[in-house]
Amino acid sequence: MSEAAAATAAQRAAAPATAASQADGPLGVIAGRGALPRLLAEAARRQGGDAYIVALCGAAEPWVEDWPHVWCGFGQVGRIFSSLRAAGCRRVAFAGGVSRPALVTWRFDLQALGVAWRMARLLRAGDDGLLRGVGAIFEERGFELIAAHSILGDLLAPAGALGRVAPSARDLEDLARAQEIVAALGRVDVGQGAVVAHGRCLGLESVQGTDAMLGFIAGDPGRGGAPKRAGVLYKAPKPGQDLRFDLPAIGPITMEKAAAAGLNGVAMRAGQVFLLDPAATIAAADRLGLFLYGAEEAAAP
Amino acid sequence: MSEAAAATAAQRAAAPATAASQADGPLGVIAGRGALPRLLAEAARRQGGDAYIVALCGAAEPWVEDWPHVWCGFGQVGRIFSSLRAAGCRRVAFAGGVSRPALVTWRFDLQALGVAWRMARLLRAGDDGLLRGVGAIFEERGFELIAAHSILGDLLAPAGALGRVAPSARDLEDLARAQEIVAALGRVDVGQGAVVAHGRCLGLESVQGTDAMLGFIAGDPGRGGAPKRAGVLYKAPKPGQDLRFDLPAIGPITMEKAAAAGLNGVAMRAGQVFLLDPAATIAAADRLGLFLYGAEEAAAP
Repeated sequence: MSEAAAATAAQRAAAPATAASQADGPLGVIAGRGALPRLLAEAARRQGGDAYIVALCGAAEPWVEDWPHVWCGFGQVGRIFSSLRAAGCRRVAFAGGVSRPALVTWRFDLQALGVAWRMARLLRAGDDGLLRGVGAIFEERGFELIAAHSILGDLLAPAGALGRVAPSARDLEDLARAQEIVAALGRVDVGQGAVVAHGRCLGLESVQGTDAMLGFIAGDPGRGGAPKRAGVLYKAPKPGQDLRFDLPAIGPITMEKAAAAGLNGVAMRAGQVFLLDPAATIAAADRLGLFLYGAEEAAAP
Repeated sequence: MSEAAAATAAQRAAAPATAASQADGPLGVIAGRGALPRLLAEAARRQGGDAYIVALCGAAEPWVEDWPHVWCGFGQVGRIFSSLRAAGCRRVAFAGGVSRPALVTWRFDLQALGVAWRMARLLRAGDDGLLRGVGAIFEERGFELIAAHSILGDLLAPAGALGRVAPSARDLEDLARAQEIVAALGRVDVGQGAVVAHGRCLGLESVQGTDAMLGFIAGDPGRGGAPKRAGVLYKAPKPGQDLRFDLPAIGPITMEKAAAAGLNGVAMRAGQVFLLDPAATIAAADRLGLFLYGAEEAAAP
């Protein structure tokens, strides 16, 4: 990513929340997996607007049935745009995880064929490249892309120790090493997380995600030579990532999996990672004896 | 690593094999896991010298019993040096994998206490940092460090397709992406391998090693959205790595695990990765229908 593009992404991230207004119509929520899209729709309604859900088949969850919605396959680009227009949406936001579909399994509609070659190329890029490209396709069609965190700012992790347990000096060393590793991964548009224990890198997040990485560590009795109980999971967006898409999220389940993997705690970049249910996440950390820590600044590379 | 250090490492890598001579005494082989140290000892003998094995407890394998040898714990630094001196070794080479021991489990001898603070700091570094530091401790005591590949040059992977199967254009795209990712990991002194399938990064090598990474992928039915049979494992030393230590190695078992993980093939940096048993490795690739490919040049970052 160029520096100019990075600066633009940073500006977008810093821009204040676009106030919902009736003139903009409901917020179009392009909904993937997990709780984040539901939280986003609820927040839009709380803030005086409404939400219309584009539920991605195979990703979005049953809660969408309680909202005005349409189910769409990834390849049904025409259906996505016409549904959003019919619902009066001018602003759209992406939220929730999406497994990269194999392009061959998509059902394309006519409009999708028009962008298929771009999609095919995008699918070979990293996640951030893919999302940027998809975002551009929406913008070209006149939609304004809204960052989920401009509406869900309350859920962004604050700085410092959030529960009863604080990281030790050794945990903070592991955190600094994990920050360095996550930054390096992010620069080549790979995962948003890593686990380090006593200086040893026990796990690196690939497309299967954080839970799979923690499961890998939990299933490895040797732990790469690390002590039985040690280490930190660190989550952060990629350096220069367009923060309108795919901010990492941590919830109570992350804490359970981190405990099962024998870690001392979980850390995340403060202000750039969602806590899906802050009270429940902190309660889980306390119950499991883990720290939950918002790190102010990524380590310099 | 500084550019000067990288240049020095490159010079060392390029230096011709030190001819074994009786005046230098036997080659001291600091032996970890796997077949590489045995192959090294056999090659030293074939080249007219002899070998004396320092077998690292918990890592070296039973073949060492057939050679002049001593078993040493990681922390028995004094015993290692005095054994090497008693055997008349002036040149030493490191070969074979070593899991990073937890420092607390070491049994130290008196000399080790003298270097314990350095070792403790080194153990928090990446692998390459650790090995460089250990190497310096040997050099300070007057030993000459020999690169295993200066003796085992015959086992370095050549360039191009080595078996009957050649990588497809898509495999080569995946290879280029994997090269980019392995280089990024290496720059922060993490693993020497990654798996990419149709542009998706399915696995990143952490301290548990290549087999564990391939097992993780084999155990993931979703494959991060990648097709059931796709992808390439790429192995390479870290950029700027001191090539006297810890060159990656591939053997028939790697091919079995790559097949179990549903990959199309295995690639490695030509001239910088060992094939543990070239004929058997190529035969395994052919039998399993995988490509085995020496890549000339790492992708530019």
